[in-house]
Amino acid sequence: MLLKTLFAVAALLAAPAAADLNVWPAPASSTTGNSTVCLDRGFKISVAGGKAPADLVSAIARTQANLQRSQHQFLSPTHGAEFFPNGQGCKSYVKELVLNYAKGAVQDPIASPVDKRIANEAYTLDVSAAGVASATGASSLGLLRALTTFENLWFKLNKGAKVARRDYRQARDGEVADAANWGGGGSGGGANPTFAPYAPYHIDDKPAFPWRAVLIDTSRHFFSVETIKRQLDIMSLVKLNVLHWHIVDSQSWPLALSAFPNLAAKGAYSPAEVYSEAQVKDIIQYAGERGIDVVIEIDTPGHTSIIYDSYPDYIACFEKRPWTTYANEPPAGQLRFADQKVTGFVSSLFKSVAGLTKSAYFGTGGDELNVKCYDEDAPTQAILKANSWTIENALKNFTVQTHNTLRSVGRTPVVWEEMAISHGDTGLDPATVVQVWISSASVKQVADKGLRLVHASNDYFYLDCGQGGWVTADGGLNSWCDPYKTWAHIYSFDPYNGTTPAQHAQVLGGQASVWAEQTDESNIDSQIWPRAAAFAEVFWTGGGAKGFPLSAVSATGRLHDIRYRIVDKGVRAIPIQPEWCALRPGLCNLAG
Amino acid sequence: MLLKTLFAVAALLAAPAAADLNVWPAPASSTTGNSTVCLDRGFKISVAGGKAPADLVSAIARTQANLQRSQHQFLSPTHGAEFFPNGQGCKSYVKELVLNYAKGAVQDPIASPVDKRIANEAYTLDVSAAGVASATGASSLGLLRALTTFENLWFKLNKGAKVARRDYRQARDGEVADAANWGGGGSGGGANPTFAPYAPYHIDDKPAFPWRAVLIDTSRHFFSVETIKRQLDIMSLVKLNVLHWHIVDSQSWPLALSAFPNLAAKGAYSPAEVYSEAQVKDIIQYAGERGIDVVIEIDTPGHTSIIYDSYPDYIACFEKRPWTTYANEPPAGQLRFADQKVTGFVSSLFKSVAGLTKSAYFGTGGDELNVKCYDEDAPTQAILKANSWTIENALKNFTVQTHNTLRSVGRTPVVWEEMAISHGDTGLDPATVVQVWISSASVKQVADKGLRLVHASNDYFYLDCGQGGWVTADGGLNSWCDPYKTWAHIYSFDPYNGTTPAQHAQVLGGQASVWAEQTDESNIDSQIWPRAAAFAEVFWTGGGAKGFPLSAVSATGRLHDIRYRIVDKGVRAIPIQPEWCALRPGLCNLAG
Repeated sequence: MLLKTLFAVAALLAAPAAADLNVWPAPASSTTGNSTVCLDRGFKISVAGGKAPADLVSAIARTQANLQRSQHQFLSPTHGAEFFPNGQGCKSYVKELVLNYAKGAVQDPIASPVDKRIANEAYTLDVSAAGVASATGASSLGLLRALTTFENLWFKLNKGAKVARRDYRQARDGEVADAANWGGGGSGGGANPTFAPYAPYHIDDKPAFPWRAVLIDTSRHFFSVETIKRQLDIMSLVKLNVLHWHIVDSQSWPLALSAFPNLAAKGAYSPAEVYSEAQVKDIIQYAGERGIDVVIEIDTPGHTSIIYDSYPDYIACFEKRPWTTYANEPPAGQLRFADQKVTGFVSSLFKSVAGLTKSAYFGTGGDELNVKCYDEDAPTQAILKANSWTIENALKNFTVQTHNTLRSVGRTPVVWEEMAISHGDTGLDPATVVQVWISSASVKQVADKGLRLVHASNDYFYLDCGQGGWVTADGGLNSWCDPYKTWAHIYSFDPYNGTTPAQHAQVLGGQASVWAEQTDESNIDSQIWPRAAAFAEVFWTGGGAKGFPLSAVSATGRLHDIRYRIVDKGVRAIPIQPEWCALRPGLCNLAG
Repeated sequence: MLLKTLFAVAALLAAPAAADLNVWPAPASSTTGNSTVCLDRGFKISVAGGKAPADLVSAIARTQANLQRSQHQFLSPTHGAEFFPNGQGCKSYVKELVLNYAKGAVQDPIASPVDKRIANEAYTLDVSAAGVASATGASSLGLLRALTTFENLWFKLNKGAKVARRDYRQARDGEVADAANWGGGGSGGGANPTFAPYAPYHIDDKPAFPWRAVLIDTSRHFFSVETIKRQLDIMSLVKLNVLHWHIVDSQSWPLALSAFPNLAAKGAYSPAEVYSEAQVKDIIQYAGERGIDVVIEIDTPGHTSIIYDSYPDYIACFEKRPWTTYANEPPAGQLRFADQKVTGFVSSLFKSVAGLTKSAYFGTGGDELNVKCYDEDAPTQAILKANSWTIENALKNFTVQTHNTLRSVGRTPVVWEEMAISHGDTGLDPATVVQVWISSASVKQVADKGLRLVHASNDYFYLDCGQGGWVTADGGLNSWCDPYKTWAHIYSFDPYNGTTPAQHAQVLGGQASVWAEQTDESNIDSQIWPRAAAFAEVFWTGGGAKGFPLSAVSATGRLHDIRYRIVDKGVRAIPIQPEWCALRPGLCNLAG
């Protein structure tokens, strides 16, 4: 086994962070040592000065509970026993982690404009070989990131029969920590300690980009509040900070709005497949406490067929066939945006939904507009003629009015790339955030418009690609965005791809999207994890963009570690390799 | 909605079975009507004459419990309310299903040679418009199939707030039927009945092929007994009848054998990731009661690296590098099969494992033998020289001896295709079953050898394909067997592909394989379901081979139905389309 261990260490030496630091995403800077420290049975997390906002207090309690209930083992053939040779126990214990409280509630800075977000997420963390542990943050949000990193330093030793990788129900049901199994050690106890093998740790960390998002789609399939919170838990674990909530689309309208009750009453799949306003607020609050900004998108003027059930006059080419002529997927149907009634309706709708949110951003959509739908729509054509408008003139009028409404309530619009580059002048404000999705090659065009952008391109970041086409045809169809995006492919992305140095400041970050045509409660965990973790490391570290070359070969061992940690939390992350490989980093490389 | 309903009906008219019959796989022959019948609150299943073997009694109890706890709704925008216009209730009730008991325990015929299996699985089922229900079977196994079909006729109406698609924990935790929610109707009750809308039903059914298998791999990742049983439950639901259990491989040896204790003690990932002999027998018993034959495979002489930990002398090129030269995946290591000691060991091993099984079949492997490994192995070369053998002579000697051992205990060997077509004369007995996996184009070569075959080709039936390569390389690798095999692609397979009419009798059926390099507890449900259901219908109906043209377009609605039924049972089957499409069969066709 000695040779194998040496090999594993050699492989890790090429890793971006300190040689043995398993933390994911890799911190901006860190050093480690060779001392094993254990968590004391009475371990506690305290705040210097004693005062902290409620959501930091709650994060402290969560971290403490997570440490106590984790069964995550060190990934090696001997599951960590190598750090306790000859059956010896721990030599030093961490009794306390002291947080140096900075300012504000965790959730305050995350809902603000992104400008100061990087500074707010910065932190330092130290754990000495003698067991002295402390963290500092520029804000409470930074302290949350420090707590997350701290949690991921630890492993549970199990000297008896190894526990099997737990099933997901067991992990979820184990929420209440069982004191009998608590692996803390200290005088008089600790046969199966919780240990960290590379003390002293010094970590000085901050993200490279302020916008690190996951998109979920609750229209093609409905997801329960619990399932969304489960994703937020793991997003926070890997320091992702934006949930882009594509909440409605042509297929269903699960958002109950007191001002527009018919939209959900007629547009949800069933009365139970609906988010109440209270549930939306609850999700936003839950996310904020975990350092995640929820950006809700009401996609317009396309992707709106379902509005017909409540407002039939507002929708052109409703379920018109063949759908392939009028939409990118069934059913066809788009807002008659040239109509001032419709523009007024959308403005009111945006304002109503924005009232539920805290974010400084709001998604207005703008993708996949089908022009032929309007060419054949008599009401639209009459309005264009009366105003001497082209369809693009009408789109600009609609966009400016609806975006102005959002700005009037303090929200910056977020749009899909077509609004910037496919329909002429749509009147976008320079502050608009553009999500590039059609191709990473579109980045240059968007950047050249002077707009800020988020990398969301399907050729790297669509987690639902490559699993077959879902439209029915005899013999089947392949995915329109084949092949499947592997974690290593995602990991090879350069965030400054397509931009000049002068445009670098326009790149806000990235977004991994999980469209839900073939995703529901059954597989959302597996579609997102662990690939969104690979994505997270690209935009936390900056990848190649920040002089930080990411190598999948070097990262595999650490990715296994975070993946097993995710599973330990009851989330069904896909294994990236056979367990044999997970236990032997480096032995499953192609060049091996 | 009328037009939509008419459209849906029109689409179903092209379906292989009776127009409205939702049963999956489609019965060989059936007729349906237009009467809605409901399950009576006191519904029971009885056996004519009163006598039945224990496993049929248990299947009856399961069916009754499943009917009582199912929340599965009719897939339409109104969730089945269309069958109860003007709020009217049920007009006729099914109070009893009478099984005409034939002979034997359910599990007896399934463990026998396949020759009479088709006859044993045959059954008829009738449900009249007045609610009289009965079934006949050529054997108890046939009655089990009839019970399964009966269960799938029914839908739960929920006139109040629709229940959301349940999450998987809820479904699993709902095992104990809740009388308060029991949807049975009858005098004085039944606001939310369990109904079947197309009575009278007459079904006369039998499978086209006797071997309809799913392969699971418990070496690359370990699966709990519960997880395996969960797959068996759903296999039985879609009338699959063979579990090919690829129980060990180079990566781990999870099979505890009293005669060879070190294999698992040293070769399992951990002591908890092991199947005891009692657990193996329990799984075989559980499967048999559900009409499934468990065929265990001990893959030899390749895929055996892990044996080195217990018997170092028996393995050549152990973990030799680069692994790409010595194996198709890491780690390298193969049995020194030219050595008589090794041949004797494998014979004893086969006999020991066969002693745990009931099946008439036993998998001996034989795939991906790496010859270069032996070219460079001094002990092997010395034996070849001493015997004046080529490596193929040695392989024949090994195969004949180990297969003879199996035959001596009544087992017919099952091998991978290379044993038939890649290594010259390996001395296979004509009764050997050959699994064609490298390409569906290999079928002809195997058939021309006069051997019986099972379609297991990766280009149709590898459910793990198309989700990226798992070997680590910077930038990532695509799957070696891209693209992902969609259900519609699988469904387009012709079982007589590659054979002449005279060879048709050699085609035993098919096998859908779920290799576990990137599959574990997190995603095994989603990898298998619902695609293995599409596979099941090909080999139950015979597909194109039996003059039964399968059309994915026609089948989509029914596949949605069985997929939601699978989810209702707590198994995480992937959605094949947005829920919008599931509720509106035919509206999501490419030609739509």
